[in-house]
Amino acid sequence: MRYRLLIEYDGTPFHGWQIQPNCETVQEVIEKAFETALRYRPNVVGSGRTDTGVHARGQVVHVDLTDAIDIDKVKRSLNGLLPRQIAVLDMKEVSDDFHARFDAKKRSYRYHVSIEKHPLSSHRTYIIWREPDFDAMNKAANVLLGTHDCSAFCRIQSETKNRVCTISEAYWEKETYKGDWVFKISADRFLHGMVRTIVGTLLEVGYGKRKAEDMIELIQSKDRTLAGPAAPPHGLVLEDVVYAD
Amino acid sequence: MRYRLLIEYDGTPFHGWQIQPNCETVQEVIEKAFETALRYRPNVVGSGRTDTGVHARGQVVHVDLTDAIDIDKVKRSLNGLLPRQIAVLDMKEVSDDFHARFDAKKRSYRYHVSIEKHPLSSHRTYIIWREPDFDAMNKAANVLLGTHDCSAFCRIQSETKNRVCTISEAYWEKETYKGDWVFKISADRFLHGMVRTIVGTLLEVGYGKRKAEDMIELIQSKDRTLAGPAAPPHGLVLEDVVYAD
Repeated sequence: MRYRLLIEYDGTPFHGWQIQPNCETVQEVIEKAFETALRYRPNVVGSGRTDTGVHARGQVVHVDLTDAIDIDKVKRSLNGLLPRQIAVLDMKEVSDDFHARFDAKKRSYRYHVSIEKHPLSSHRTYIIWREPDFDAMNKAANVLLGTHDCSAFCRIQSETKNRVCTISEAYWEKETYKGDWVFKISADRFLHGMVRTIVGTLLEVGYGKRKAEDMIELIQSKDRTLAGPAAPPHGLVLEDVVYAD
Repeated sequence: MRYRLLIEYDGTPFHGWQIQPNCETVQEVIEKAFETALRYRPNVVGSGRTDTGVHARGQVVHVDLTDAIDIDKVKRSLNGLLPRQIAVLDMKEVSDDFHARFDAKKRSYRYHVSIEKHPLSSHRTYIIWREPDFDAMNKAANVLLGTHDCSAFCRIQSETKNRVCTISEAYWEKETYKGDWVFKISADRFLHGMVRTIVGTLLEVGYGKRKAEDMIELIQSKDRTLAGPAAPPHGLVLEDVVYAD
């Protein structure tokens, strides 16, 4: 039987999503919780990876379990076994052909910045010290909408060949909390390091280091070296993954 | 010149407030930031200690600085030097006889619990899994109000001799966030481990392990072994310190 789980996590103590040797990753911790609960270790397939320090409020995974289970009981025991930084928010049976990664139609990320220090939410807010020009940043963000080859925002070491993404949403919004802003971006897919590079580039627009109008040229260049530096991971949250159903 | 500072911190990465050998503490990190900014290291006196993992939204400290300073500039450079988990919210000159610890008239703490996991605020919320009887807990909390010898809630190793505290506020309140509750307590002073022991004892009332009516007897016993276990530190925040001025 295949199950679909909705996962929230604080990425601070983990080395990202994907299993790798000698590091504690979110995927590994979840697989080990399954192993303790069910006495065998299933493969947990996520909608996508997140880097070290990146958070998720709506990561979706699928997992194949061999025996019939009491979903509520397994969900409860997973939550009891998982550290407080990881929670299973929802778990349900899905058809055998559902795939958390390949079936995702839209992914949404949020990036939080603040011009003031907020220690109690410092694990998920990037402090930018002085107020950038958010109007200019929104003008630049607007250029991102549509279907483009996004190589200019993709980590150079990435082996992904198809770099065409359709961005359906990209804007900065003031949060109710004084001095806080959030960047909301949605696309059918994201390349490695893409959101953080876009945020770093938009901040350069906001501080007058580049112009909103130059974004078109930047995208067309497909040259990562022409974009801004990646913003730090701890401001980023994988907010939501949408499927056809 | 003496200065009074208002400090917020996430206690997660620190070994409490007070300087001790071979550990990074909030007091030490702040003194070192002063040392970098001013080229000498002043003694930073806090309103009180907080244990490892305990947070503060309103810690008050005083510090004596030998030279005249530009307050805004020093505050800004301290915030730049301090890690993102510690912020100076306010800094002002005070008279030489102001004392952050001895002049404090009232201290307020908050303790956050939730019956659901919230990974993104897991550093400051204690997960209690099932809903206790908050009405019974508030009945028990009400007994705490007034002036008592609070030895029953004081860590046994504590060397403090005067254990009389006047508790002016003690109640549980539902938070807007689903499943979250907060315990608010104010007193003229708190003994070592006092709030966490009170919370642990009230939770036992909430789960039917002890009765609200038995709180009077417990206080009168002055016997720490009769109280409940201390609730974990990460749910606790030093919210506010009030002075006569």
